[in-house]
Parts: sequence; C-alpha cells; structure tokens
Amino acid sequence: MTQGHRHDAHPITPDWVKDAVFYQIFPDRFARSGRIGGMNLQPWGDPPAFHKYMGGDLWGVIEKLDYIKSLGVNAIYFCPVFQSASNHRYHTHDYYQVDPMLGGNAALRELIDEAHKRGIRVVLDGVFNHSSRGFLQFNDLLEQGPDSAYRDWFHVEAWPLQAYDDTRPANYAAWWGNRALPKFNTNHPAVREFLWKVAEYWIKFGIDGWRLDVPNEIDDDSFWQEFRRRVKSLNPDAYIVGEIWGDAHRWLSGDQFDAVMNYHFTRPCLAFFGAHTLDHAMNEKSGTGHVEPMDAQAFAARMTEVTQMYHPDIVRVQLNLLDSHDTARYLSAVSEDSSAHRLALTFQMTYVGAPCLYYGDEIGLAGGPDPDCRRAFPWDESVWDMETLALIRKLTAARHATPALQRGEFRVLYAQGEHLLFARPHATGDAYVAMNTAHTPAHISAEGVQHGTYRDALSGQTLVLGAETEIEVPARGALVLVRE
Amino acid sequence: MTQGHRHDAHPITPDWVKDAVFYQIFPDRFARSGRIGGMNLQPWGDPPAFHKYMGGDLWGVIEKLDYIKSLGVNAIYFCPVFQSASNHRYHTHDYYQVDPMLGGNAALRELIDEAHKRGIRVVLDGVFNHSSRGFLQFNDLLEQGPDSAYRDWFHVEAWPLQAYDDTRPANYAAWWGNRALPKFNTNHPAVREFLWKVAEYWIKFGIDGWRLDVPNEIDDDSFWQEFRRRVKSLNPDAYIVGEIWGDAHRWLSGDQFDAVMNYHFTRPCLAFFGAHTLDHAMNEKSGTGHVEPMDAQAFAARMTEVTQMYHPDIVRVQLNLLDSHDTARYLSAVSEDSSAHRLALTFQMTYVGAPCLYYGDEIGLAGGPDPDCRRAFPWDESVWDMETLALIRKLTAARHATPALQRGEFRVLYAQGEHLLFARPHATGDAYVAMNTAHTPAHISAEGVQHGTYRDALSGQTLVLGAETEIEVPARGALVLVRE
Repeated sequence: MTQGHRHDAHPITPDWVKDAVFYQIFPDRFARSGRIGGMNLQPWGDPPAFHKYMGGDLWGVIEKLDYIKSLGVNAIYFCPVFQSASNHRYHTHDYYQVDPMLGGNAALRELIDEAHKRGIRVVLDGVFNHSSRGFLQFNDLLEQGPDSAYRDWFHVEAWPLQAYDDTRPANYAAWWGNRALPKFNTNHPAVREFLWKVAEYWIKFGIDGWRLDVPNEIDDDSFWQEFRRRVKSLNPDAYIVGEIWGDAHRWLSGDQFDAVMNYHFTRPCLAFFGAHTLDHAMNEKSGTGHVEPMDAQAFAARMTEVTQMYHPDIVRVQLNLLDSHDTARYLSAVSEDSSAHRLALTFQMTYVGAPCLYYGDEIGLAGGPDPDCRRAFPWDESVWDMETLALIRKLTAARHATPALQRGEFRVLYAQGEHLLFARPHATGDAYVAMNTAHTPAHISAEGVQHGTYRDALSGQTLVLGAETEIEVPARGALVLVRE
Repeated sequence: MTQGHRHDAHPITPDWVKDAVFYQIFPDRFARSGRIGGMNLQPWGDPPAFHKYMGGDLWGVIEKLDYIKSLGVNAIYFCPVFQSASNHRYHTHDYYQVDPMLGGNAALRELIDEAHKRGIRVVLDGVFNHSSRGFLQFNDLLEQGPDSAYRDWFHVEAWPLQAYDDTRPANYAAWWGNRALPKFNTNHPAVREFLWKVAEYWIKFGIDGWRLDVPNEIDDDSFWQEFRRRVKSLNPDAYIVGEIWGDAHRWLSGDQFDAVMNYHFTRPCLAFFGAHTLDHAMNEKSGTGHVEPMDAQAFAARMTEVTQMYHPDIVRVQLNLLDSHDTARYLSAVSEDSSAHRLALTFQMTYVGAPCLYYGDEIGLAGGPDPDCRRAFPWDESVWDMETLALIRKLTAARHATPALQRGEFRVLYAQGEHLLFARPHATGDAYVAMNTAHTPAHISAEGVQHGTYRDALSGQTLVLGAETEIEVPARGALVLVRE
C-alpha cells in the first residue's frame, strides 16, 4: 500500500508504460545487418574498446524484432542513435540525422514502423546537455572564433578555443570538464528552441518517448517544463524518463519527467540477491558504486521506501533496471552467479514499475564496467544461457497475463534473513512472490496471503494457500503465484 | 564558323543551357528573409570578412525570384548551400543538409519549386574533392584516431592528426595544404560511392545541374565519368560544369563535363574592354591574375580561338563569366569604369555560350578580391546603377528573342584598334554586334554584313545596312543589331 506518500499533485503518466517491458539496446553492439559497408570495424565479438566500432545497425535490429518480441518485450529504449563520431553516440554530431552507420533516418523509419506493427514502442535517448566538437554550431566556433554565428550557443571562457589540445585546460564549459562534450548555453533562446524542436521533430517522426541523458546538468526547471509541454502536446502518451541517479523529486512533480532510470531499484537488487557473491572491486568502478550486502529485512524496508518515494502513478512507470551501458552487467557484478541474476530478474519482473532488460542479459551475456558492458550480442545460440532465457520468457508472460504484477501495489508480507514474501495487491486478485536467496530450501509462512488456489508461473505447479500453509521455495529460487 | 575544331566526338550537352542566362548567388550575401534568428551576424552591408556571416538565406532568395526573373535570368548557379561552418560553405559539414542558416532542405525545396514555376533552373555547387574538419567522417578520425570507422576515407600521413594546431604541419592531405579542407581518398570505393550518391540525391531532389568545385584535384577520369553516368541517367538534361581555370580538354571529351567555368572568356574581356583602366595590382591579387591590355585585333583573335577550343556543342554551353566569388568584381578590376563593365556585359550577352551574371553586377556593386567581392546585395535602390541594370535587361531580352544571339556561330568581321564588329551567323538570320572601346565615336564598315534592315536592341533605332554602309558606334558604346 502506498498511503505513505504525501504528494497532492496527481501526475498523469503514460498508461502503456505501466504494462511495458523494456529492452535497452546499445546500437553499435546488438545486431549487424551487413547492409552498410566501407568502414573500418572491429570483428563482431572482439573485446569492446572505447574508440572502436563493431558496426551494429538499425537494419540489424529490425531483423531481430521477432526475437525481441519473443522475450515478452513491448518497448525498446535505444542508447543514442543520432549521427555521432563515437561508438556510444553520446557525442551528438547532428540531432536530426540517425547515424549513417546505423542506416540513417530511413532505417529508423522502418524500425519504428516494424516495431509498432509488433506492439513494440520505441524510446530514444536524448542528449541535450552537450554536443560534440564536430556539431555544426560548435564547429563554427572552432572555425570562426569570436565571429562565429553561434558564439553564444556555448559557454566560452577564452579564445581561441582549446578543443583538441589536451595539454591545456578546455576554455569552455563541458560535461564533467570533458572537452569532447561542450555544454550548451541553454539560457540562449535560440539554443532552447533548437533543443525543443529536436524533441518535437522525433516525436512527430513517431517515437514513443525520450530517455534524457544527464538532464540534471541543465539546472533549469523551466527548460524541462517547456520540454514536457512540447512533447506531451504532440503525444500525450509519450514517455519522458530522466537519467537521475539520486533523489529525483525535483523532476517528478508532474511537470517535468514521468519517471527516472531507477537506480534506487538497482542497488538493493545487487545488495540482496547478490549478497553472497558481490564483486566489490568491480562495483566500485561501475556506475552503481560500492554496494553493501543486505538481508531480506533491509531489502524489504528499502524497496518499500523506494515504492513510496514518489506518487504511485510515477512509481508504476519508473524504469527499473538491473544494469545498463553505464554499469557492469548484473551477472558480472555478482561474480557471474547466474542464480543471483535470475533472482534479481524475477524480482524485477514482479515488482512495481517498468522492467528494463539490458540487451544480452537474457542470454547470460557478461561484462564489467564500460566498455566491457557493451559487448557484441553473441548470436551463436550455443553460447546462450537457455535457463535464464526461459525464465525471462516465463516472467514476462506472467506479468503480461496478470494485472496485479503490472499494476498492483507492493506490500511485503515476510522478510527475514534470506527469505522474502511480498504481495502485489490488485482489484483483479493479488499476486504473490516468494523468494529464497539461501542455498537451502525455505518454507515461508503464507500468512497474509488471500486464501485460494494459485499457479506458480515459474514451475507451473498449483498451490492451495490457506492461513496455515507454508510455501516451499527452492534454494536460490522463487515462486510467482498468480490466481488460477 | 567553327570548322577549325578537330573533334570527332559529338558530345550531347543540355539544350536548355544554350538559351540560358545564369545568375550566380553567394548565399550568405544575397538576401536575408529575417526568418532565421538567434545568430551572431554582421550588419547587412558591412565590409565582408573571412570569418563573419551576414545571414543571407534561401527564403530571402525566394522573395527575390521575381527580381531575378526581371533581369532576364533563367538559371541560378548557387555557391555552396550545404551545411558548413564557413560563410562561403566550401567547407562541407554535411552533404545532405542545406545549411540551417540558409533555411535547411525545406527552403531549398521551396526555392526549386518556385524557381521552376518561373522557368528558372537551379544549379548547385558540389565540393567533392575535400570536406571540412567538422564533417562526420573526418571528425571521427579526430575522435577515434586510427580506430576510426572512416580511417581510409582520407589520406592520413601520421597520428594523431594535427587538425587544429597551426604550429605543426598538417599530417594529412588537404586542399592546397589547407588543414581546414581535408582531401577525400577518392580511391576508396566507399568514398566514391558516397560522393556519387550525394550527386544522385540532389538531382533526384530536383536540381538542374552541378557546378563542380576544383574537380581537377580529383585526378581520376573514371571518377568523373561515373559521376556523369549517374547524374545523366537520372536527368539527361542536367548540366555539369567544372571549375577548370586552364585547358579543359581532358574533361570536355563528352564523357565527363558538359562545360567549364570559362575563365578563357574572362581574361580577354578584362584585357580589351578594360584596357584603359585595368587595376593591375588588384588583378594580380585576384583569381584572374595579371591581365595585359589587348587591342581589338588581339581580342578578336583570342576570342576566335576560345570559340574553337572545344566542340561547338560544348562552346554553346560554356559558362561565360566576367567575375565570380573567386575574382575581384569586373567593375572594380577596371577601376570602377562603368563603361568598360557595360561593354563587357554587352559582349558577354551577345557571345556564344551561357552568360553568367554575378549577383549585384547588374546594379553596379563593386568589390575587390575575396572577401570584398562577396559584399551584401544593397537592396536600397537609390544606390543602384540604373543604367547598367537597364542595359542588362535590354541585352537579355534581345538574347532571348534572337536565336542568332543564343545559338549562332561567332565570326569577327572587323577588328582594329578599339573597334570591333562580329557576326552571330544563324539560319534564322544573323545578328551583328559593333563595339567601340574608344573615347570618341567610331564608324565601322558594315562590309560582310547581310544587307537588310536591323534594329539596335540597345537604342531601339532602325538601321538599313548595305555594302557601303558604315555603322556609327558611340564612344565607349555598342550596337546589337538584330533582324527587324
């Protein structure tokens, strides 16, 4: 129950996200069609490097849409796809062009159309805080100096700009001082309008939402308020999700974002399900930072807090992720303990909010912090973890079939040591999830569970639960109990 | 008569060019609509500078199409319009995007449509030898170094590239060693295909031809042969005109270009019509270089050579220019002697080949070598040279009304001292032009002229010419004699 929240505003968040299962794709590394040639690429599958391309493209994604659909996914969140001289494409070179190496705007057109035909939404990553050094308007500063037509588009401290001379400090504002990423002057009306127009353009093009890169760096509520107005006036169902790692109340009052990337979800999932095997050294180098193990009680308390952190309409559309292009992969962060990863996936798929799979997690792709977490998807099925893949398909099927798993509240019924039982109360009938992170089977009291007959979505077995029943949960296992 | 040429090939050049009068526009300086804001610009009309923008745009050109039409112009040749961090836009940043400062692709779409409605063709400037430092694929070399996907698209001599450090030599091939203009590796199949695709894209978009910037720098006949095949297969009427300052036989065998920018026409026109007032110091700094005065006999001999230099189908579509963005304006090169300029314009409009006016020449806009020859068009009519403007309108009207002036041969009947009489023989009736560069009136024998009644297209007077007639030509004046 979320009566704990004290928000008066009633934000309207997109309904479809409450039922969404996302799949995050790093475009250079997911699938390569072979339709785009003439480039110097790494062999597909070689260890990722900061400055090398593997040549994945959107035509390749289109070829894999049926595979993506088969995972129970109904929304894709793409890392940046716009033209960029970087394999991650966070260095935007042109906001209006999909990178030619990805197939250009024509490929995105077909991708969106083919995805929509399959009931899959498409969310793009918008990098509005900074551009790249090759971006026309910044490049004009390099070419013209103070006479540039775009002199006021950036924060210049001195001329000439030291854009490529690493022996001198960058004399313009840049993201975290990185001279490759000059920060926009978002106080300039033309810059604001430029960025808002970009947002509008792609919404009109047909995307279903924006994931916003480092939006806290644009320290200006009015910028994001107008961003929201523009986007929502074109598509009230568009999803706006910000990359905010910490407290996000500022942006989640209903007038800026719909949700944030829920790293508040990520860390407890590492701490509890990975408690036995956390790779501390790796996490300390990863986006998540150091993670202390948690027991079930602490996890339950923290997840209850997280569930009540924002308005319930927001919580139901939070982007719940176990890992991303900015962290080690979950599997690697727990020292490749698949059982921890599967428990975490089970929690992710049965908790409140929109689960987001990071491409390859479903087949057991490993990877340490950036750049290793950006490996090429191995399309040779002989190396896939079929158990994890099957689990995910069961979990997404259960979620899509069960309103309680999609939209129910979150209430912990039992949490001790390594044992957890929580309910997803919902008017159509509650669902329950019993989890055991111990290496021995658990028997968890069904106290608090509505009496009745349930099916475990994972094993298929039927259980009749009453006041005195104990639920037997396998070692390092879980039951997802839905009404028969 | 052109029996002197010894070409066997019979090249097919676009018919429309034989009847075309071109107008060359430098987009940043012709007309500003005011529709594009948020930029740091020079005030319109301030002295041009290498690194400043005045903000002319294509919406502005559209507003002036009726003015352009009123000059008798039926084709526009635009200096580069593609996205570029330079006011001249020879530093291409994106070959598929019209510069946003010019109004983007939408403005070019409307411009082409509105021009075509008025019977005006549109030729764009293609800069295929080199890109800019901000061009995505070159920028990728700067960002990734030898791991760049586009490593082989340029001619790299050593890493890291010294693209912005003027204290060291550029370690990659660049146009005339200018590090701002990295030269494409046109031996790379992907680069060739990229450039050909650009050519195809804009032909499909609706342009009527390509003016090719420094095409001799791509020392590869097969490149331009395929370029021609691609362009002509999409539009057999497309005009391909190369910027070749010297002998152009290599490119004018019928398998590469239709014509070249006819600087062989420019220099004699300076030398003869400007003989009294040539500004030698200025010309030596200009694209034309040093020009020695010529008398009528030398001029006639040279222009006869020029007329016979290539196949007559090519000569009829040569782009005959008195000046351009690469030279001082003709008016300035002759120390602002309007009479010399008007004589040269008269010759240009009555000679074989397609005359090309450089924007502003028609209203007496002056300007020394680059950047001064790129002044803003003064739209305040009170400063216009109305006499030159009226002359041009008469000349273009006469040309359009007289097949002999458009397509006739070129035959000198008389050339001595400062007096010149030439014929434009044609099956529909010959036309004659009598010119006098002296400061006193001339009487030129009409010997060789077909007997009959003629109208002087400039004064409107009627003349009956017979064997013994003398044509009276005013001081620093001319008669353009067409059949009544």
